[in-house]
Amino acid sequence: MNHLRIASVASEFEDHPTFSDDEYQQQLRVLLNVTREIYKVLHLDQLLTTIMDEVRKALNADRCTVFLIDEEKNELWSKTAHGEKEIRFPKNLGVAGYVAMTGEILNIRDAYADPHFNPEIDRKTGYRTRNLLTFPMKNIMGKTIGVFQVLNKLNGYFREIDEEILATISSIAATQIENAQLYEQQRRLNDELRGMYEQQQKALYSFVQTLASTIDARDPLTAGHSQRIACYCDEVAKILNMDENRREVLHYAALLHDFGKISLRDVILKNHKRFNESQYNEMRKHPAITKKILEKIFLPEKLKDLPQIAGAHHEKMDGSGYPDHLKGDQIPLEARILTVVDAFDAMTSNRRYSNRIIDFEKVVHTLENDSGTHFDGYFVTAFKQIPLNRLVEILEDESTDLLETKDLNFLANFTIQDLLNEIAQKSDGESKLIQIFNKYYHRDHLEKKGKDEKNNFNS
Amino acid sequence: MNHLRIASVASEFEDHPTFSDDEYQQQLRVLLNVTREIYKVLHLDQLLTTIMDEVRKALNADRCTVFLIDEEKNELWSKTAHGEKEIRFPKNLGVAGYVAMTGEILNIRDAYADPHFNPEIDRKTGYRTRNLLTFPMKNIMGKTIGVFQVLNKLNGYFREIDEEILATISSIAATQIENAQLYEQQRRLNDELRGMYEQQQKALYSFVQTLASTIDARDPLTAGHSQRIACYCDEVAKILNMDENRREVLHYAALLHDFGKISLRDVILKNHKRFNESQYNEMRKHPAITKKILEKIFLPEKLKDLPQIAGAHHEKMDGSGYPDHLKGDQIPLEARILTVVDAFDAMTSNRRYSNRIIDFEKVVHTLENDSGTHFDGYFVTAFKQIPLNRLVEILEDESTDLLETKDLNFLANFTIQDLLNEIAQKSDGESKLIQIFNKYYHRDHLEKKGKDEKNNFNS
Repeated sequence: MNHLRIASVASEFEDHPTFSDDEYQQQLRVLLNVTREIYKVLHLDQLLTTIMDEVRKALNADRCTVFLIDEEKNELWSKTAHGEKEIRFPKNLGVAGYVAMTGEILNIRDAYADPHFNPEIDRKTGYRTRNLLTFPMKNIMGKTIGVFQVLNKLNGYFREIDEEILATISSIAATQIENAQLYEQQRRLNDELRGMYEQQQKALYSFVQTLASTIDARDPLTAGHSQRIACYCDEVAKILNMDENRREVLHYAALLHDFGKISLRDVILKNHKRFNESQYNEMRKHPAITKKILEKIFLPEKLKDLPQIAGAHHEKMDGSGYPDHLKGDQIPLEARILTVVDAFDAMTSNRRYSNRIIDFEKVVHTLENDSGTHFDGYFVTAFKQIPLNRLVEILEDESTDLLETKDLNFLANFTIQDLLNEIAQKSDGESKLIQIFNKYYHRDHLEKKGKDEKNNFNS
Repeated sequence: MNHLRIASVASEFEDHPTFSDDEYQQQLRVLLNVTREIYKVLHLDQLLTTIMDEVRKALNADRCTVFLIDEEKNELWSKTAHGEKEIRFPKNLGVAGYVAMTGEILNIRDAYADPHFNPEIDRKTGYRTRNLLTFPMKNIMGKTIGVFQVLNKLNGYFREIDEEILATISSIAATQIENAQLYEQQRRLNDELRGMYEQQQKALYSFVQTLASTIDARDPLTAGHSQRIACYCDEVAKILNMDENRREVLHYAALLHDFGKISLRDVILKNHKRFNESQYNEMRKHPAITKKILEKIFLPEKLKDLPQIAGAHHEKMDGSGYPDHLKGDQIPLEARILTVVDAFDAMTSNRRYSNRIIDFEKVVHTLENDSGTHFDGYFVTAFKQIPLNRLVEILEDESTDLLETKDLNFLANFTIQDLLNEIAQKSDGESKLIQIFNKYYHRDHLEKKGKDEKNNFNS
């Protein structure tokens, strides 16, 4: 279809029979190319660069700048001809300003002899302008939306044929620039909306995280619990290659599984000895309360299953759990993951008033032994694939100042399962792996008690 | 610049000297118009309608449809020529399919005599196709992106000049359609992002609201407190004509001002008798805790002042408040509003175990008397501008089944200040206004105790 565009210029030339056939043919090829190049681009910055470049080549000139009119600020602006910086000046300033205001063409054959030309800019830039063609860019409605300024024709000065070529390019360029500006507006709105969305997303997450750690902190024994199990869940999700949305709902469920404890009385929540039956029953209400509260919240589509998942973290595979005595597959998959990591953390984290007392292999064996009755064995197996560096980091609440990089690098080569294998084989003596792991697992934590209280806002 | 586009067709015509000068002139005008119309529109639906309409007029035909190729689904689709419904069919079906696949022009002078034509569609629609011009729409890269199908030339059949005109329009249309498609993509992304943002915003708000009512519900005396003062704040904000962002931060601050109470022990929180000094000091910590917790949360830009505002709701104008003994203007404006409505609600809401015991005018007089020392009088005055229907609705926790519409309509004509004036004048007897107001203010609330417990998740 491109021969039609070429023809458009052809007929222009026919109005000016002074041009030779050769000139005519060559300019047709140039214009074909310009048209192709310009209509390819809808990103304003790139489009302006393309236009300036193509005009410079088409007119055999040394430089070309396109100035656009900023109606709001009453300014002309441009990217520098071949740079990145933006130039701005009042709409009525200089040669470009004159053309922008009047819509006239200024073809100046001797710049320094012309009153419109301001030699000040040459003095500043060190450039020497000999001649210039300054041409209004008009849109389909005939309105001037910008100005071409073409400097220093390589041979001689700008002639009528240059004006004719520029007229054609100008019309194409104006159309595409207006399209690009509309497109740009949308893109800017997009960026803005994306930013607002991300802020809001971050706010919700941060809110949930802070709430979770605040609830945990009501009881020193559970400080950091929800954050840790959220981290374990992330690891298991990675091992299972879960999709992004499921990972997110699992992570939120981990953070919020104990939300219901907000409604428990201190006498229940802080009772670590023995419950009487009514207290025990009250304690067991918290998953149902979690679910009830979360159901009241408007959740984004991808978090719709949050109440069911968070509310089912005390269900057991054999149906002996609570609150709904769900069995096996009736328990949401994510809740079955939660159950494993929740139990693991309960057995390995009670260290504010005491160091870890259960040997690591016994903890994991409990998970294994209770697979099928309490836990879903599939997720116990997945859990055992967690790399030991991540396990240690989570056990230590990611407090990097306590963890040595060379140890973490070493541990990164092994999983929980590897460690269990090693322990099973080396019953007579300790390997490097076991030693390094135990250095953290059996660390004396009581000394860093102060640090852990950062989430206890009441202190 | 438009004469250039006309020229483009002009030269086409010059290649076919059989066209008369009149035809030539008329078609130029038509094409000028088509070009103008098409380049005006960047919304795809509207653009397609415009193109179909302009082609139909330009070619003097009865109908025109543009089919676009959907590469993903391997289909051709179109809006109906002059309707809203979308048509879709496999990319290789019928005359349009043939042209889409081959890029050839099919100019069929007698539809029913041509093997490409499928008379089935006519039978279904009741339309009678005599002749048709089916023309590929190619983009600047020469790729077929769609098909024009023009039906029933009004006089005779489609000739070569129609093909030439359509070739020019096709090239313009293809460019603008591709621009419009890019634009459309952005717009769709925009809508999606806006939807996601709104969901997330709603989720955060709903989360905060639920959390606030859960915290309030730990103590039956404060059930609904945060939600009510958020509503009072909205009313005051409206009266003060505050801007949207400030209203939002004020509303959030109202909901979250008692967030710190999450960390208080039951023995403090539920003590409604007399505190000993250490208990009193612990109770007084809650605004500082609120601030500390909120400062840990990542907040969207417009909520940045939330911690300072929520944390200052127990400051007093004379500096005798807590936690920071701020004075006058040192207290954030929004916190000074919170202080007024917080005190008002404390004096008017203790009705779970008892009906309201303080007369309404005494409550407001307390706010007035303590202006300058405790409260900012400016906001007490604003508070008194709240219309009585809203006051009653908020006092009654918006439980519409208890409120009679005719009473609310009547109360809507008066403000708190109006009621006070009436009370001052009518010391000897009760007016209608006073009677209706007291019907709600002094309602026997104990009977509806059950209803209020909806946020007590533990019950």
